[in-house]
Amino acid sequence: MENTGENIDWRSICPISSALDVLGDKWSLLIIRDLIIHGPRTYSQLLESPERISTNILASRLDLLSCLKLIERVNPDASSRNNAYRLTEGGAALRPVLEALGKWAGTHLSEFHENIVTLS
Amino acid sequence: MENTGENIDWRSICPISSALDVLGDKWSLLIIRDLIIHGPRTYSQLLESPERISTNILASRLDLLSCLKLIERVNPDASSRNNAYRLTEGGAALRPVLEALGKWAGTHLSEFHENIVTLS
Repeated sequence: MENTGENIDWRSICPISSALDVLGDKWSLLIIRDLIIHGPRTYSQLLESPERISTNILASRLDLLSCLKLIERVNPDASSRNNAYRLTEGGAALRPVLEALGKWAGTHLSEFHENIVTLS
Repeated sequence: MENTGENIDWRSICPISSALDVLGDKWSLLIIRDLIIHGPRTYSQLLESPERISTNILASRLDLLSCLKLIERVNPDASSRNNAYRLTEGGAALRPVLEALGKWAGTHLSEFHENIVTLS
């Protein structure tokens, strides 16, 4: 199914639920993380992240994030597979979400994940 | 597969990735949301939320959240299906994540979801 911002099946009017309708998976926020940390990244570079996202999941998530205007191509008219993606203002605005998630996990998951990096 | 805090397949040492390893789905944070908003809730009450979680997903998520010590039964020795769940300190510490998600969504998804509630 083609992902567009218009065909999302919103479960409720709750903004938390709506955020999870589009970002509630194990991968979308990792793409946002990589673009926050590294700046613009190509498809190939995004595949190299330590979590090893699969090509079909990466393509699907890039499509949805683009439709939601959270990321955009650096050179939208170029056709190269090495064209890079960057965050829009809306995508960059997810930084507080990632900071809160990372801070929480470093504190509350360390009991279960002995090698987890703890954020100061 | 039985969910325990010990058998999670952590994808990396990144705390954001680790948070998504356990909470990266469309439902877990909604259970946390309901317990933050309403206080202790029974299984039946959690089923009544507007997003209409299914019984099998709810049972699975309650199991994982309990194993991760993010929620606990109010009366752990009682066997009643109406026994309530409440947040632990670790679960309550997810409040900043939910606040950040909700604030972001109210601002950046309203273009796609005309009825979304905007948080002040």
